[in-house]
Amino acid sequence: MITLNEIEEAHKRIKDTVNKTPVMTSRTLNDRVKANVFCKCENYQRMGAFKMRGAFNTISQLSEEDKAKGVITHSSGNHAQALALSARILGVKAVVVMPKNSPQVKVNATKGYGAEVVLCEPTLASREETTSKLIAQHGYALVHPYDNDNIIRGAGTAAYELIKEAGELDLVFCPVGGGGLLSGTSIATKGLCPKAKVIAVEPKNADDAYKSFQAGIVVVNKTTNTIADGLRTNLCERTFAIIRRNVDQVILVTEQEIVDAMRFLWERMKIVVEPSGAVSLAGVLSGQVTVEAMRVGVILSGGNIDLEAFFELVQAKIGT
Amino acid sequence: MITLNEIEEAHKRIKDTVNKTPVMTSRTLNDRVKANVFCKCENYQRMGAFKMRGAFNTISQLSEEDKAKGVITHSSGNHAQALALSARILGVKAVVVMPKNSPQVKVNATKGYGAEVVLCEPTLASREETTSKLIAQHGYALVHPYDNDNIIRGAGTAAYELIKEAGELDLVFCPVGGGGLLSGTSIATKGLCPKAKVIAVEPKNADDAYKSFQAGIVVVNKTTNTIADGLRTNLCERTFAIIRRNVDQVILVTEQEIVDAMRFLWERMKIVVEPSGAVSLAGVLSGQVTVEAMRVGVILSGGNIDLEAFFELVQAKIGT
Repeated sequence: MITLNEIEEAHKRIKDTVNKTPVMTSRTLNDRVKANVFCKCENYQRMGAFKMRGAFNTISQLSEEDKAKGVITHSSGNHAQALALSARILGVKAVVVMPKNSPQVKVNATKGYGAEVVLCEPTLASREETTSKLIAQHGYALVHPYDNDNIIRGAGTAAYELIKEAGELDLVFCPVGGGGLLSGTSIATKGLCPKAKVIAVEPKNADDAYKSFQAGIVVVNKTTNTIADGLRTNLCERTFAIIRRNVDQVILVTEQEIVDAMRFLWERMKIVVEPSGAVSLAGVLSGQVTVEAMRVGVILSGGNIDLEAFFELVQAKIGT
Repeated sequence: MITLNEIEEAHKRIKDTVNKTPVMTSRTLNDRVKANVFCKCENYQRMGAFKMRGAFNTISQLSEEDKAKGVITHSSGNHAQALALSARILGVKAVVVMPKNSPQVKVNATKGYGAEVVLCEPTLASREETTSKLIAQHGYALVHPYDNDNIIRGAGTAAYELIKEAGELDLVFCPVGGGGLLSGTSIATKGLCPKAKVIAVEPKNADDAYKSFQAGIVVVNKTTNTIADGLRTNLCERTFAIIRRNVDQVILVTEQEIVDAMRFLWERMKIVVEPSGAVSLAGVLSGQVTVEAMRVGVILSGGNIDLEAFFELVQAKIGT
């Protein structure tokens, strides 16, 4: 099992490279939920999401031999960009396998951070096959987005920093997708504040963690039609084992609750978060857990959202 | 003339009520302009803009007799909301005269902060007449948005905090509309860092400060068609006198440069700023002033922008 001490070690390893993201508070939010809420703003992390912590921690722990060969992943979201940027910083080659129907903006962002992008057919089978073939040919180290202890240790450093800065907390709300962030958050929280409760928040439309938590075994969803695109992934055995032990409750939020929480963050707190990043606050605002008079930590996991459509509206206002 | 000492006094007066807004930095921004840039994020101020500083400072300095009667303004932007919130905090009545064609969202926001809204015809004459009549009837104290020393002293506390936190600066970029923020910024900057240059940034489409600075007298624009709606106002003699003495250069930015700077702040720095709030960064990015290897302060003045249209797009993604 991963320990608090290992998260502390990871923090020492990465803290001069990743951002110590701000902890933000809002009088309006505190008044609304009658609690003291501390938002850990991982949208201000390098490349825009907490994924940077785990990716940098993982690559920096590879052997020199593995570093010389390079790393590979077939995620196409924030993990790919985090891996690309971390690899560049460490002088390691990064390869990202993406389906050929990926939005050009994602391909460009990943290339922008210095990764080699290999396009494949838009099926999971093709992604895995393409990845395996490249690993066989070049000896790349596969860095899974969450089924990896060093990823989890790195992810846990966000809650670690939050609690070190905000002090003792009663509750910590954290989004859950594949469970890497939640695993790290739960270990850091229980380690630093044994009495604190860890609340996982999941989109109702991608409720595999909720079902798994109830059933006691990993349950996989076939469809995951949620706007919180970073949370469509399923748990793995590694993260589920940690979550079962450390998480107190898994709650579900609707798509509307996610959008409303995101809107609150943008309008009232002036923070650009992506839908997945607003899910934890949606959990707080949903009222399913009593927060009154408590000290509440909330992990806002990232801020990478396509603003093209919004800026088309802005552009129209000034003409040309 | 307003002194640094008076800004320090204002800061002591307001600091427990207004937010000490964060100073944010960005590796991407620093790399792009090859400088160390410190953004003073007044979008995170209470009610969303620096206006809170001057409004709270001004009302708290009124005599008990004036406080008992109440305050009035006929601005309908951030100043009105700042006045309303400050008055509520201090237990003072606030009246805001607004044209009856004002967007309902602005009327609601001002009422939401506890002000009484009086609607008038949508002409400057009607606004002034309505305001004068109410002052004659009720003895309200008129709080002008910038032609007021206590407003300027309060506004200066943003740059004061910035320099106290970031340390010695070589350049400070500040937007200019009526000149209240610029006046306060320039006094604080020259007081704390006598060698620093103060650069005023103005939309090309509302270039009265630029023209006034060149001409040596207050020049008024007839049309001010800029997306930076907070900067459409003209200088007054009070602010012009301060600006002539303390500001080193006034530069102009195009509408496209304003939108591009705003997009950079949203996409790369994850900060919601309004167009007026992005004008100072547009000045930095425009390359008109050499910033290389310098320590550069940038006042991001506010973040109040109507997000309705954007969230209609988001809402459409989840249906209903």
